[in-house]
Formats: sequence, C-alpha cells, structure tokens
Amino acid sequence: MYEEEELIVVGIDPGLTRCGVAVINLKNPKVGAKRAVEFIQAQVLTTEVKFAHEDRLLQLDDKLNAFFSMFGNEDQVVVAIERPFLTKHNPNTAMGTAQVMGLVMVHSRRRNYGVELFTPPQIKTAVTGNGRADKKQIMNAVSILLGLNSKISAPPDAFDALAIAITCINRGVGVDSALSSGTQNAETEAQRIWKDATKNALKKHLRM
Amino acid sequence: MYEEEELIVVGIDPGLTRCGVAVINLKNPKVGAKRAVEFIQAQVLTTEVKFAHEDRLLQLDDKLNAFFSMFGNEDQVVVAIERPFLTKHNPNTAMGTAQVMGLVMVHSRRRNYGVELFTPPQIKTAVTGNGRADKKQIMNAVSILLGLNSKISAPPDAFDALAIAITCINRGVGVDSALSSGTQNAETEAQRIWKDATKNALKKHLRM
Repeated sequence: MYEEEELIVVGIDPGLTRCGVAVINLKNPKVGAKRAVEFIQAQVLTTEVKFAHEDRLLQLDDKLNAFFSMFGNEDQVVVAIERPFLTKHNPNTAMGTAQVMGLVMVHSRRRNYGVELFTPPQIKTAVTGNGRADKKQIMNAVSILLGLNSKISAPPDAFDALAIAITCINRGVGVDSALSSGTQNAETEAQRIWKDATKNALKKHLRM
Repeated sequence: MYEEEELIVVGIDPGLTRCGVAVINLKNPKVGAKRAVEFIQAQVLTTEVKFAHEDRLLQLDDKLNAFFSMFGNEDQVVVAIERPFLTKHNPNTAMGTAQVMGLVMVHSRRRNYGVELFTPPQIKTAVTGNGRADKKQIMNAVSILLGLNSKISAPPDAFDALAIAITCINRGVGVDSALSSGTQNAETEAQRIWKDATKNALKKHLRM
C-alpha cells in the first residue's frame, strides 16, 4: 500500500498556440479532515503561429519536457488532460490539439505518471456543478476552491488547466488508483469528502 | 549550395495500431541521367490494441526513435507523411493517427529533417496517375518504380509508406529544397526527369 502524504495533480488544457499547464498539490489524499489542496503554479506554454506546424510541435515538446522535469523521480504525479470534442469547423486546430495531447501522454507515461482524460462538460460540472458554466463561473469556482487571492494568483488563461486538475481530484479518478489503496470504500470516501468540501466552499461563497 | 549525391526520403503511413515506415535512397538527385531511386527498407511498426492508448503512444514513440536513429548526423533526410482526411466515422482512430503524425514530426524536426505532408489522392496520383487507384494498383506501381522482385521485397502492409516516399520524390517537394539549389529551373528539371522516368516505366510495364 502506498502511504505518501502528497500527490501532485497536473492539469493540461492542450493547444498548439496556447497550452495551459497547472500544478496542484493534494495533501493527505486519503485522510478526510486533513485532505487539502494547495495551488502550486499555473502557466500557459505558447508557440508562435508564424512558424511551421512541425516546428511549433517541436518547440512545445521542449517546453513540455522542461515543465515535466520540475518533478522529482520520487513524486507521485497524475496528469489530467482535457479531451475536447473533435470539431468539423476547424480540422487543423483539432489536429494540433490532438497532437499536443499525444505529446503530453508520451511525456507522462515516459515518467510513469498516471494519465486521465476529461471532457469539457465533465470539467464544468466537477468545478461548478453546472455542465454549461461559462469562463467566468469557472474562474470564480477555481479561485474559491484553491483559495486564490491578490497574493496567490494564476494567469487568467491558465484557469482551465487548474479546473482540469480539480476535476481529477473531485472525481477521484487516477488519484485513488495512484494511491493504490485497493479498497473501493476508501475511494468512495475520498470522493465524498472532497465533494462535500467543494459544495460547502461554494455555498459559503454564495452567502457572502 | 548543397552537393551531396544521395538524399534519404522516408515515407510514413501514420497509425497507432500499424505505422508504415519506408526508406528510399535518391541517388544523384540533381543529375538527370544518373538520378535513380534505391529501395532501402520498409516495415510496419505496431502496437497492441490491448494496452492503454497512452502506453501505446509511448511504445510507438520508442519505436519511431529507434527507426530514426538509423540515420547518421551527416545524412540529408526528408520525411514525407500521409495526411489522411479527418473522418467523423471513427474519431478515436483519427485522434490516434493525428497523434502519431505529431510524434513523427517532432522526431523529424529534432533531427533537423524536412517534413512534407501529402493527402491520399496526391499519393495515388503521384504513384499510379490515378487519384482513385486501389491498393493493388499502388503495390504494382511501387514494385515497378523501385524494381522490387522476389529477391528485393517489402511487406505488403508497408507499400503505402513506400508510395508516400515516392510521392515526395515525384512531386519534387522537400527534395529540391533539401538540395537548396535555389533555382526554379533545376527544380522543374528534376521533377520533369522523374515524371518521365515514371511514365516510361509504367508504359513499359503495360506493354509486357
């Protein structure tokens, strides 16, 4: 059984022009009362449209490699990636996004990190309770859940990546398997405690 | 000006389950009469469906890395990749194919190889003269153009990858820029000579 007291949850909002990357530390993942999330960082990795597609992929691959290299060999890491719906409207963008997802998966598995995918409605629901929430509602919910304020802040473009990491924790996907507790009850409890905490935090905010 | 007498043209038929890879040596790329193609190798890199998508990507990435490592630092290499049309019918396959294309692009650009993309109709037209040619017609044309026979042969699944490499040579895309001749006339001549040779080889075959 794995007894580490911290689990790093990475959220990735894949894109060739702008790729959001966020890191959340999940403390005492299995212990109800002590379970807590800590905002570590959020940023956007970019490539310039003026360069050739294949050169932008290489550039982003280097940036992803540098990003993932911040974690130690001892760290338990789960990587949560948004899986956008393939759209007919812009096949080139869809292809670029799929390719960035692929690069993230290879970097993750090469380091033996877990990989989890979530769709946009899953992310919106997990963070706000509303599968059709807009950007502002997501930013508000993420700020509350992570205790962001004027001192601890994230760039606006990176909130989707934070929301993806929160979704992974909220749903207990990957997190519980990384902990290898092996019991279904423990998983359910961890999920329940987190969901209750989320609900309470949002309720409190609404009353303010 | 670049005066190397050989240019390696790699053809890639991207796929997560089966990825065709082929290598053709283009000798004396600029010299009309001495210009010739030589079949080097063709194979299919595979991953097993039973493994998780992200693990298959990692596995294929390792195989692609090993494949590309066969070339020396001094080699002039152009990588031609098939760009299939995105289909609604199987979005998961389309995503896997796009991701494999992305991995191939990163491996290529990391080694400073040129990258060129061709659509299925472009490949069929370049190899057989018919944009709607079937698999058998492509295999026949590739065999004739490369002089394949019972002694020099390629696995049937890898003929598409060979056809992609031939397309790159036939169209003069990437090949001429790799040679950096800098003159439009030289490019046109190289293309014309190759196209004539292709036509003659096919004519001769049809008479047999």
